[in-house]
Amino acid sequence: MTLLQGITSPADLRRLDRSQDGELCAEIREFLIHAVAESGGHLGPNLGVVELTVALHRVFESPRDVLLFDTGHQAYVHKLLTGRAQGFDRLRTAGGLSGYPSREESDHDVIENSHASTALSYADGLAKAFALRGDQHRRVVAVVGDGALTGGLAWEALNNIGAVPERPVVIVLNDNGRSYRPTTGALARHLEAIGTEPAARSDFFESLGITYLGPVDGHDCASVEQALRTAVSLKRPVVVHCLTKKGQGYPPAAQDDVDRWHAVGRFDLATGAVESPGTPSWTEVFADEMLAVAAERPEVVGITAAMTVPVGLHKFAAKFPDRVFDVGISEQHAVASAAGLATAGLRPVVAVYSTFLARAFDQVLMDVALHRLPVVFVLDRAGVTGPDGPSHHGLWDLSWLSLVPGLRVAAPRDATSLRLLLREALDRDDGPTVLRFPKEQAGARIEHVGQIRGLNVLRSPEAPRAPRVLLAAAGPMATACVEAAGLLADQGVEATVVDPRWVVPVPDALVELASTYPLTVTVEDNIGTGGFGERLGRRVAATGATTRVANLSLPARFVEAGSRNELLHAHGLSAPRIAEQVHALTIGTTGAEGRRMNEAPYSSG
Amino acid sequence: MTLLQGITSPADLRRLDRSQDGELCAEIREFLIHAVAESGGHLGPNLGVVELTVALHRVFESPRDVLLFDTGHQAYVHKLLTGRAQGFDRLRTAGGLSGYPSREESDHDVIENSHASTALSYADGLAKAFALRGDQHRRVVAVVGDGALTGGLAWEALNNIGAVPERPVVIVLNDNGRSYRPTTGALARHLEAIGTEPAARSDFFESLGITYLGPVDGHDCASVEQALRTAVSLKRPVVVHCLTKKGQGYPPAAQDDVDRWHAVGRFDLATGAVESPGTPSWTEVFADEMLAVAAERPEVVGITAAMTVPVGLHKFAAKFPDRVFDVGISEQHAVASAAGLATAGLRPVVAVYSTFLARAFDQVLMDVALHRLPVVFVLDRAGVTGPDGPSHHGLWDLSWLSLVPGLRVAAPRDATSLRLLLREALDRDDGPTVLRFPKEQAGARIEHVGQIRGLNVLRSPEAPRAPRVLLAAAGPMATACVEAAGLLADQGVEATVVDPRWVVPVPDALVELASTYPLTVTVEDNIGTGGFGERLGRRVAATGATTRVANLSLPARFVEAGSRNELLHAHGLSAPRIAEQVHALTIGTTGAEGRRMNEAPYSSG
Repeated sequence: MTLLQGITSPADLRRLDRSQDGELCAEIREFLIHAVAESGGHLGPNLGVVELTVALHRVFESPRDVLLFDTGHQAYVHKLLTGRAQGFDRLRTAGGLSGYPSREESDHDVIENSHASTALSYADGLAKAFALRGDQHRRVVAVVGDGALTGGLAWEALNNIGAVPERPVVIVLNDNGRSYRPTTGALARHLEAIGTEPAARSDFFESLGITYLGPVDGHDCASVEQALRTAVSLKRPVVVHCLTKKGQGYPPAAQDDVDRWHAVGRFDLATGAVESPGTPSWTEVFADEMLAVAAERPEVVGITAAMTVPVGLHKFAAKFPDRVFDVGISEQHAVASAAGLATAGLRPVVAVYSTFLARAFDQVLMDVALHRLPVVFVLDRAGVTGPDGPSHHGLWDLSWLSLVPGLRVAAPRDATSLRLLLREALDRDDGPTVLRFPKEQAGARIEHVGQIRGLNVLRSPEAPRAPRVLLAAAGPMATACVEAAGLLADQGVEATVVDPRWVVPVPDALVELASTYPLTVTVEDNIGTGGFGERLGRRVAATGATTRVANLSLPARFVEAGSRNELLHAHGLSAPRIAEQVHALTIGTTGAEGRRMNEAPYSSG
Repeated sequence: MTLLQGITSPADLRRLDRSQDGELCAEIREFLIHAVAESGGHLGPNLGVVELTVALHRVFESPRDVLLFDTGHQAYVHKLLTGRAQGFDRLRTAGGLSGYPSREESDHDVIENSHASTALSYADGLAKAFALRGDQHRRVVAVVGDGALTGGLAWEALNNIGAVPERPVVIVLNDNGRSYRPTTGALARHLEAIGTEPAARSDFFESLGITYLGPVDGHDCASVEQALRTAVSLKRPVVVHCLTKKGQGYPPAAQDDVDRWHAVGRFDLATGAVESPGTPSWTEVFADEMLAVAAERPEVVGITAAMTVPVGLHKFAAKFPDRVFDVGISEQHAVASAAGLATAGLRPVVAVYSTFLARAFDQVLMDVALHRLPVVFVLDRAGVTGPDGPSHHGLWDLSWLSLVPGLRVAAPRDATSLRLLLREALDRDDGPTVLRFPKEQAGARIEHVGQIRGLNVLRSPEAPRAPRVLLAAAGPMATACVEAAGLLADQGVEATVVDPRWVVPVPDALVELASTYPLTVTVEDNIGTGGFGERLGRRVAATGATTRVANLSLPARFVEAGSRNELLHAHGLSAPRIAEQVHALTIGTTGAEGRRMNEAPYSSG
């Protein structure tokens, strides 16, 4: 039996002799590398926190003491030490082990939101609560990366934590010097400078009333453990500065310049070769077109919130390094500084994951839209994102963006339309525009067979017979809709498939077209409430048309982890499920007797 | 002619001999005190920046150099020096001078968003743009309060500004030691400590690569001017730390302990007595009930983002100082730390203005709702707010909050229902709840004449005749709806008025009730898109009922400044306008022939 097999709870770890920590850490690394090679996952970050997590569970008694992992993806080791090794064969799959802390899995887990920079706020809240309730024996520990400190929420929390010297919080700063790429910003420079000094102090933390301990070798269990024990003994806010290396112990991940091992797909253990899907992803298509546009238009600049490569700004940045700004994990600043850039006449492209732009709702509304500034937002990972689960899906963007006055959203259906729509978005100068597309591969080109005032007709029945139906596909749902139309034709239902291209606001041409059909079915990878379909239904109803408008969309609740295709199918958005639902809707919807009604089989209000 | 009358542009100021600055500043104060006594407005902050603003316009050449005023309400002096003195007789009125910078008013104005902590981000964007475009002769200056630095967005910007030593930005830190109350947090302590030291330096700013100059007496024009000239000469990121006093020069405002002179109503010049409306405001009703609830339930805690008095947590805080947390102007942390408090078993009440909660959309969604935590949000200033204009109205909350899974929103109609609904909200333990109410007076009690499964019937026709109509009033619109029903009765239209009390999700009982009427009209002080009425219409349509549902709401665009009553009337939400629209809708809506249709006369999608 290995040491790791003998550990089913942190108490088992604490019973292990410290001299065996090195062997245990080696076993943990071996386990992680094998598990992630099979499933894909956040390998780099977890290889970096092996010793640190072992030390944490030696010093603190979870769950009495509360261990908070910021951003969540660095919790694999914590999962192993809290009895969840057996779950790793189904890591990040539907119904399997979550890639993030999960309260359903374990009492040792607290924060399920895997957005960065949150843990210090929970720590402040928990420490306040324990003080009020007389539970001061319960310690509060937050593990945050140097990247997460670039986020404003972390600053707000530090400013509160440091203000009360008698309320202890232990902050473990897991400083690997990178978010995805090297961490940017003034604080990162400061940390780098003190990281090379023996007996360093941090003017930054000390000026905020937080005692600084370190720097500590984050790959030496004993050093980390000692620093943590000192931190606890001080009974005040303390930061323990641990220097770690992402990918430590697995050469392909440790020698990683572009952070592709941060979150990786399945890979070959021996060679480190990562499985590739072959066809280009939406991100890659955007990256290439962005580079082309940037070469043509000197006023175009790019902004990324610490994700240059994942959002596809790396080619632009490589060619024009002065024109791409990595602002750190700070979506609010990404948007508000874009307002500043646009005010000065530049044309900023803010590229960000859909789920993270919610951090900047106020800035999109008040700094960009109120000022009618031509900022282009490029939302990657819109809709169902996949194995990262509830806090990574981009289910809400069409709904909240449609509340922003003057804002327009385009949804490309394939690589070609992504390229065209990016240029159309950049050509608008009267306010903000947004492009949204999902994770994964852009898929095959879908030619249009006709055009109606800016709408692309993707399939038009040659010999229309009743019952007729219009399928309005938002962006990437076009592929499934065209396929569904083929299935419907086999069942005697003639479906026209149309791609509106711009989905906020709903194009007038689509309202008019839909109004000529007895049944229109919208399909989108967004929740129904406030989505594209709901807005089309409302517009059609307002014309007085007798059209029945039904909306196929994602459920208005948090959606579990799973592959994109699995989840789309489960929620009725695969081609066969679309065909099945449209077929059912056509029964009883005949021509002029069509009911005037908007339906939302999958949404609630 | 006074000195002030001779200044119609900053060039006039720069021609004035410096020896006359003292006299000019005295004239400016006199002008401001008289103007605000007539109109109400942000007197305290502007009396604090008189000398500072004069010095700014001496050193910098606006609009070539860009002066950015954070939070905007400190721009009155700037308006005076840029030729807008004559507008002050219509300050903060519909069509009059804005209380904030306004690009329509002047080329000297840039940021219209008056939410705090934004100016440094614009500064970073503008400085980046000027560097790229070779416009380095254009200087960028941001004036920020010490309170605004508690906001995460300001931190994100500092972290970017400090990272590039060769890109100059001048940050004028207007440190009056207060946001509304004394500024909280670790940084405020640090600033206070260095403010008392001669030849001080700031470890905080210096550690972030930002040169610190100061502290400077912010009420001495020459000192401020000299520091600004030094800052410019350094050609790098610099903070000029100015110590100022809110209300300087007007004793009632300067001797103000609870910051009631921050934003004040009309007042008597001689005595400083502020006009009082007599009846209690929604805020005051909440403050009293909150205190009562807190006394009964020890697990209840309060959280405010630097607005203890304005949001009505001051009575709670005075009685139980350990249980109310002022986290600074940091809505994100307010919400995420509330998640921490709730995780530990406490029952946090986050009291905040509606418009500012948009800053924390992601935290409401991911930290509170995803974790199903029983956090209560109390949104003051929901709906039309009044003279503060576009960035202060709370027009969107019902729409974006309704996207959050499991979240419930209550809208009290009067003081009594506010008290009851606060308790109902605190009794729910399965997720977040929200109370929303507007600015101003809670008004007279509106008794219900009947109840239907949790709905309050406010008016029920004694002898129902056709045409019948159901008026569903969201919260404070009940008063106007009851009055409108009276007007309609005179015109032979029988209206039943119902208060659903909970507006997100739409109560099943209301859907059922509405479905029994040929016409239901909803009335809400939120935009139509995603609002209460739209969601009710959708639910009614889904039942297959023949009911016509029309929605009266605010327009889906930015709404101008004006009094609440003026604006509600202008947008069709006063009693006579409601009656008029309902009457028009009844024509042609008769019993079973009612059209099945959702209408939104004032919204677009």
